[in-house]
Amino acid sequence: MSWRSAGLGGAFLLVAVTVASAQPAQPDPVRDKVRAYRAAHEKEIVGELDGLLALPNVATRVADIERNADHLTAMLERRGFAVQRLSAGPGTPPAVYGELRVPGAQRTLMFYAHYDGQPAGQKGWLSDPFKPVLRSGPPGPNLKDIDLQSVTGPLDPEWRIYARSASDDKSPIVAILTALDALRASGLQPSVNVKLFLEGEEEQGSEHLGTILRRNTALLAADAWLLCDGPVHPTRRMQIYFGARGVAGMELTVYGPLRPLHSGHYGNWAPNPAVELAHLIAEMRDEEGRILIPGFYDDVRPLTVAEKQAIALMPPVEAALEDELGLGRTEGKGARLQDRLMDPALNVRGLRSAEVGEGAANAIPTEAQVSIDFRLVPDQTPQKVKDKVEAFLRAKGWHLITEAPDKETLKAFPKVARIAWSLDYAAHRTDMSLPVSRAVATLVERAAGGPIVQAPMLGGSVPMSTFTDILKVPMIGVPIVNHDNNQHGINENLRLQNLWDGIEVYAELMAGMGTMMGK
Amino acid sequence: MSWRSAGLGGAFLLVAVTVASAQPAQPDPVRDKVRAYRAAHEKEIVGELDGLLALPNVATRVADIERNADHLTAMLERRGFAVQRLSAGPGTPPAVYGELRVPGAQRTLMFYAHYDGQPAGQKGWLSDPFKPVLRSGPPGPNLKDIDLQSVTGPLDPEWRIYARSASDDKSPIVAILTALDALRASGLQPSVNVKLFLEGEEEQGSEHLGTILRRNTALLAADAWLLCDGPVHPTRRMQIYFGARGVAGMELTVYGPLRPLHSGHYGNWAPNPAVELAHLIAEMRDEEGRILIPGFYDDVRPLTVAEKQAIALMPPVEAALEDELGLGRTEGKGARLQDRLMDPALNVRGLRSAEVGEGAANAIPTEAQVSIDFRLVPDQTPQKVKDKVEAFLRAKGWHLITEAPDKETLKAFPKVARIAWSLDYAAHRTDMSLPVSRAVATLVERAAGGPIVQAPMLGGSVPMSTFTDILKVPMIGVPIVNHDNNQHGINENLRLQNLWDGIEVYAELMAGMGTMMGK
Repeated sequence: MSWRSAGLGGAFLLVAVTVASAQPAQPDPVRDKVRAYRAAHEKEIVGELDGLLALPNVATRVADIERNADHLTAMLERRGFAVQRLSAGPGTPPAVYGELRVPGAQRTLMFYAHYDGQPAGQKGWLSDPFKPVLRSGPPGPNLKDIDLQSVTGPLDPEWRIYARSASDDKSPIVAILTALDALRASGLQPSVNVKLFLEGEEEQGSEHLGTILRRNTALLAADAWLLCDGPVHPTRRMQIYFGARGVAGMELTVYGPLRPLHSGHYGNWAPNPAVELAHLIAEMRDEEGRILIPGFYDDVRPLTVAEKQAIALMPPVEAALEDELGLGRTEGKGARLQDRLMDPALNVRGLRSAEVGEGAANAIPTEAQVSIDFRLVPDQTPQKVKDKVEAFLRAKGWHLITEAPDKETLKAFPKVARIAWSLDYAAHRTDMSLPVSRAVATLVERAAGGPIVQAPMLGGSVPMSTFTDILKVPMIGVPIVNHDNNQHGINENLRLQNLWDGIEVYAELMAGMGTMMGK
Repeated sequence: MSWRSAGLGGAFLLVAVTVASAQPAQPDPVRDKVRAYRAAHEKEIVGELDGLLALPNVATRVADIERNADHLTAMLERRGFAVQRLSAGPGTPPAVYGELRVPGAQRTLMFYAHYDGQPAGQKGWLSDPFKPVLRSGPPGPNLKDIDLQSVTGPLDPEWRIYARSASDDKSPIVAILTALDALRASGLQPSVNVKLFLEGEEEQGSEHLGTILRRNTALLAADAWLLCDGPVHPTRRMQIYFGARGVAGMELTVYGPLRPLHSGHYGNWAPNPAVELAHLIAEMRDEEGRILIPGFYDDVRPLTVAEKQAIALMPPVEAALEDELGLGRTEGKGARLQDRLMDPALNVRGLRSAEVGEGAANAIPTEAQVSIDFRLVPDQTPQKVKDKVEAFLRAKGWHLITEAPDKETLKAFPKVARIAWSLDYAAHRTDMSLPVSRAVATLVERAAGGPIVQAPMLGGSVPMSTFTDILKVPMIGVPIVNHDNNQHGINENLRLQNLWDGIEVYAELMAGMGTMMGK
């Protein structure tokens, strides 16, 4: 086993990674040159990322997205890319497409990343999520702000950039472009034509992605698409993935009395919507993660033997994570995290009814709301999941509506729930044994200087099925960001060492793929 | 049956009440004179109430409470009351006590009201809760603001004053003082000495009330205490009550991972606190109001035959309320509201975990919180309820703490919950057959001009047990405000007709109690 498989604890890992950066197990000329370039341009690289992170990028605000697209266009054109904006129509978030032809290259590699981000309105951010700040480490005591301009000498690779999308998913864009800069500065050339597809609404469910892909199948042709999204393995080992779970979101609101009622004078008689919601949630999912909706697991495609073997080879992470996250138990009665991620999941992402704490009044709330995301696996589809959930709710006596109810509707049915879906996309798993799959694995391993993790399917969601259904192209995920990046939460951050590693990984792929696949 | 028992529907009720004001079933000289006084001073009476409502009065802000006490002192002194501020110590909300000796009176009547209010931070108020606004009716379409100064002629009795504490519980104070003004202006005198006890922290659990009462037992002696708090009967009939349920509040927070986690990469494995909270709530209470905590009903004292008879005489309100509130079902499988209010209750007053709707992120929340109020009946005590709830939670595997947990605590126990109680006070029921009980019933009936509702115990909570345990005095509730006042919720309001009726009720009691009890 290499040095990377030994350490599971947070503190130990930091030491291991630092050592690894200085003493790679396997020497490699491409990586060494790229590393030297990076070491000479660290502040410049961070500065370019900061400039991108300073642009608010929640995809529901298309004007913000357009500003990001303009900024990205300029970044790509500086490197000689031919850039186009691909859109499904006016007022929709565009994808930014860039193409760089390499003389003599027979193969084409497409890099995918997304430049939109999750909403950042949660309380608890250390600073404005769209004003990137360099800090001395992960969130916690003794965390210090770093003034980049006043730093002399190399940046501490454990420092982190705090901002929405620092990890998910703007830093891979900067890593790809810096990889190209580093190759060129070192007198090396990509062995493949390089294409970039930068999506603008991934975090909002990729509503227009299918349209964009269908309209541009020729333009977007490639020997492989590399998905530069998601985190590295929690052990901090580099990881590639051949699939990703699908996702569907559901907002459910249940109703009590038309106006808030004094709980003393009407409680025990007027139905309490917060109690009804609690029962509804408890009936849908147990405390071990098992979804109790009849037939929910019917469409789950079993894992192949190769997939099971790959999962078995993934290093155990559970003890380290339990420590890091302060977990006194895990769901699934002790099952491994990786095994759990191969199953569909129901996550309650938010609850809301009236007020709690100091603001709570002794009243029966008028409504209670739950926000849920479902993670899907092959061969579930969002539509089938919707149908099963709604059939279940109806069987439990709920009258389902899609708009705010009027009084007559509320009176006509014992239980009324308003339901809103975002039927995002299905799951996908790519064949791990294709030549292109093996070439990517080899090159990422070369960049990492040791064994990497190969996941048949990522727990998170990337719209792989949307691409593969339309483009019929092999897709492999090559993520670079730290696993503890608070992606989707407050204080999202990127560890600098992960950005440095990412530059080397993408440079190896650009330099080597054409050669390995037959230039 | 009188005119007041026939109408149950909202629209019909409004007609009935208006007619009743003009054509009382039983003539009465005291009431007629008081009514004439009120009719001549309507804008002045509303103006005095508006001035009091303009003072923010959440009892956690003692400086606000002191400003209210100053204002009330001036109002009482204008009427010749000897006023004292009764306090449990510096920095605590004081009670305002006023005493008016009547020459020749042998009996003393104490009026209780509270001048603090529920927090008003909820979203959805039509206007600032501490800037009273007169409007054309209850909340709903076509509601109009009324400019009091520009009104000529009598005020429409269906107009309402919107403000926090408009109903709960500042308007009774103005009704009592106006009753006294009206008697004097009519050449009538109270037949009893009149005392006022105005509490300053009822909505925060009356923490210091016991101390104030114990230190002032001689000062606060009276033949009866009248509690001027709570609403009239939902049929709009006048109602008196001989008891009130007790109350205890609980805030419970359960914990997930230390930081928000991407639901795709960690869901199904890292425990979801919102799901755990849903199960916990569902295990504590069913959807029919039944509390599932073992032994919870052990201390419930059965109703007497007289109490059961009084309840049976209370008019049915269910069909009208179900219509008014838009209820498609009720808890308790069709049981009557009044019967349900004789049982203890668990009300979920709020839920909170991460975000819902547009702000929801696909993450596992770090915590989930529920806010609960328990309504107690004799002979339950807040302490016994706390013990039973905590024993239940521990039996379900929860490790209970009272401060925010550290990482070591979270790791040491499979389930950790932070619990905070407000052990307010127990329930009470006064003997309905005492002479003073019968006298109050007779006089309120006289003011109402027809039969009234006599409730053995109000569903809401008033600290009757605190008074009766210390002062050993008969206590009877004489509420005046409209039942549909949004008490404790947004857009709390007072219907003017209820203020007018309240003035007449309190005037009858002041004028008649001494005579009826043997002056």
